[in-house]
Amino acid sequence: MKTLWDKRYALRTQRMKGSAIRELLKFSEIPNMISFAGGLPAPEVFPIEKFKEACITVLEENGPQSLQYGSTDGYLPLREMIAKHSARYGIEVTAENIIITSGSQQALDLLGKVFINPGDHVLVESPTYLGALQAWKAYQAEFLSVPLDNDGIITDALEERLRAGPKFIYVLPNFQNPTGVTLSYERRLHLIELADKYGVPIIEDDPYGQLRYEGEHLSPAVVLDSQTRVQKSCYSGNVIYLSTFSKILAPGIRVAWVIAPPEIISKLNLAKQGADLHTASFNQMVVHEIGRYGFLDSHVKLIRNVYKERRDVMFDTLEEHMPEEVIWTHPQGGLFLWATLPEYIDTNELLKEAVKTNVAFVPGNSFFPQGGGKNTMRLNFSYPIPEKTNDGIGRLAKVIKQSLVKKRRG
Amino acid sequence: MKTLWDKRYALRTQRMKGSAIRELLKFSEIPNMISFAGGLPAPEVFPIEKFKEACITVLEENGPQSLQYGSTDGYLPLREMIAKHSARYGIEVTAENIIITSGSQQALDLLGKVFINPGDHVLVESPTYLGALQAWKAYQAEFLSVPLDNDGIITDALEERLRAGPKFIYVLPNFQNPTGVTLSYERRLHLIELADKYGVPIIEDDPYGQLRYEGEHLSPAVVLDSQTRVQKSCYSGNVIYLSTFSKILAPGIRVAWVIAPPEIISKLNLAKQGADLHTASFNQMVVHEIGRYGFLDSHVKLIRNVYKERRDVMFDTLEEHMPEEVIWTHPQGGLFLWATLPEYIDTNELLKEAVKTNVAFVPGNSFFPQGGGKNTMRLNFSYPIPEKTNDGIGRLAKVIKQSLVKKRRG
Repeated sequence: MKTLWDKRYALRTQRMKGSAIRELLKFSEIPNMISFAGGLPAPEVFPIEKFKEACITVLEENGPQSLQYGSTDGYLPLREMIAKHSARYGIEVTAENIIITSGSQQALDLLGKVFINPGDHVLVESPTYLGALQAWKAYQAEFLSVPLDNDGIITDALEERLRAGPKFIYVLPNFQNPTGVTLSYERRLHLIELADKYGVPIIEDDPYGQLRYEGEHLSPAVVLDSQTRVQKSCYSGNVIYLSTFSKILAPGIRVAWVIAPPEIISKLNLAKQGADLHTASFNQMVVHEIGRYGFLDSHVKLIRNVYKERRDVMFDTLEEHMPEEVIWTHPQGGLFLWATLPEYIDTNELLKEAVKTNVAFVPGNSFFPQGGGKNTMRLNFSYPIPEKTNDGIGRLAKVIKQSLVKKRRG
Repeated sequence: MKTLWDKRYALRTQRMKGSAIRELLKFSEIPNMISFAGGLPAPEVFPIEKFKEACITVLEENGPQSLQYGSTDGYLPLREMIAKHSARYGIEVTAENIIITSGSQQALDLLGKVFINPGDHVLVESPTYLGALQAWKAYQAEFLSVPLDNDGIITDALEERLRAGPKFIYVLPNFQNPTGVTLSYERRLHLIELADKYGVPIIEDDPYGQLRYEGEHLSPAVVLDSQTRVQKSCYSGNVIYLSTFSKILAPGIRVAWVIAPPEIISKLNLAKQGADLHTASFNQMVVHEIGRYGFLDSHVKLIRNVYKERRDVMFDTLEEHMPEEVIWTHPQGGLFLWATLPEYIDTNELLKEAVKTNVAFVPGNSFFPQGGGKNTMRLNFSYPIPEKTNDGIGRLAKVIKQSLVKKRRG
């Protein structure tokens, strides 16, 4: 349709690209499709009854407030609850350090709006979370990247990139999306040391930190950075920390948070005023109602049990079915693992074959800010029930084997 | 606190200014303060029982879907419901023309992201909605403005501004925020004619369209534009139309929508993916559940009755108490009216005096993109109950009289 809007798009709009993952999510809606593509929590662990109770309580006790406009930084009791919860993990902050966002995706967008000038460089892991690339491309960021291995971002390769003067470093230290790997303790310290040496601050994105199924909890960068300071117990402010209720409660309510120095919170506040005024009051109050008496502690244990089982089923079936040319990561938590195929296999091509047998995954290529990774894929283990994983990995292995044979013959 | 983030803000951040209104909202929280400052719906008309029923139904019947990630463009049955509802007002569109946003504020932000390059000119009414200025300043828009009178934007003054080649025209034709005035039918046609002549498209923001307390409904610009085309019944696409559930249901759930050509919807979709992935699934499904059997029709009638009464009380008390030097608009709907004082009165100064007697309003100055209007104020009549309006306008009139006397003496 020809309209007066034609040719009026901003330059940045031409750079906007849809997320391959969100395109792939539609596979999960096809009947009989077994999808390892999404990043969806298991609907079986959503505490529906708790939500019902909380909705009723909030509406009965605070109906008018919950349906009214609210403050941009968020519902104070929820921010206080988050501060209290954070202290248990060594993040010593108050409600002043916290702003509620409409999912962590909005946190990434607002940080982009507040910090990124066109042409600014942002240092990311390679591969990294696609949504961050997408959010910051809209502000015309350029990306510098450092590869990662089984211990997370390779900090020895960091120094050279830091010399280029990036605006900030973006890391997902726990059970990274897309690879599932965790940044080792030594590398966390090294990261902090280098960031400090070059004066480059860090954004630490931690949606999965509580979903650890084995091994020991590692202090987040935000805590380690504070511990290297003179005032050891205080939040240093060099690390902006993001987390969310999406993975420990439910993503469909869009409630997440940012921890930052008060000066930055006030800038994020201004940006958020223009972006959506505030996150839904009702949702914030419902989350607070669900969380205030400690329900999340027991609920997270339940999620851990369910996801650990699903992960282990995936480990076992991969072990059983995959040809020896395929290797994969062994995440200690989170939602994803990462498989690497022989270099002559293109997982974008492979996906077309896989979909024909009703199985889907995300080709790894789009997670690489500078391209590459054409022989990699991300597999989600939290969403499909064990029987489906069993079936699906079997089918996927078959498609891969056929593809290997074809390539060898070709 | 000194951190590594210091001096790393983007240039646009330095231009971000808080909304004076949101600052003033804190007045409404002071006990005994009578606030005409906010733009708050009356909590007395929130259908709390309906919300309770809908939350329970959604969670019982579609719990997992309502708590899960959803598609960026929004819950299809809700978009279909909006399309059907729009048809009643002559806006002939399908779900393909609709994207759900987290409040209309997000619609303004996303439109800025998709269309505005730094330095682009946007043509607005003067005064206009502050949130639009705030959203688009973040994309470094420059503003051209055209004054309005009791019949809305003065279209005779439009042509000269259109020659400067603005990216688009932004208008609030019904019960405009902040003035309460409505664009007359003749001027609507003139606006369309001029927009067409100069090839400049229109964003029509219509949060209050259904809240008309007297007089006849006027077709929105989006309908009039389509009627001037050959295919009279089709949506022409030249006018992007925004509306929201904030004023007819509740703002605390943050659910609004944009009507645009499918090509633009797909760009907004990309922008929204990066901005917040999607609007809360739960909220969209609850709104759909509340609206699907026609509840909103009767509910809007209730709101109209309550607000009409509150408006009339404000008209009467203004008439009774205000000195003759003060004039005000007589809106046929919406939430606000606009008062103009003698030019030698600065309403920012006046506010300080008013607050001392526990009454608040919004000084008009900040609604003017190019400054001016220092002797104007916006008064909200939807939020305070009639007794409060009576008291509050009495106090305000007293403060104004004192101020007039002082100035005359000075």
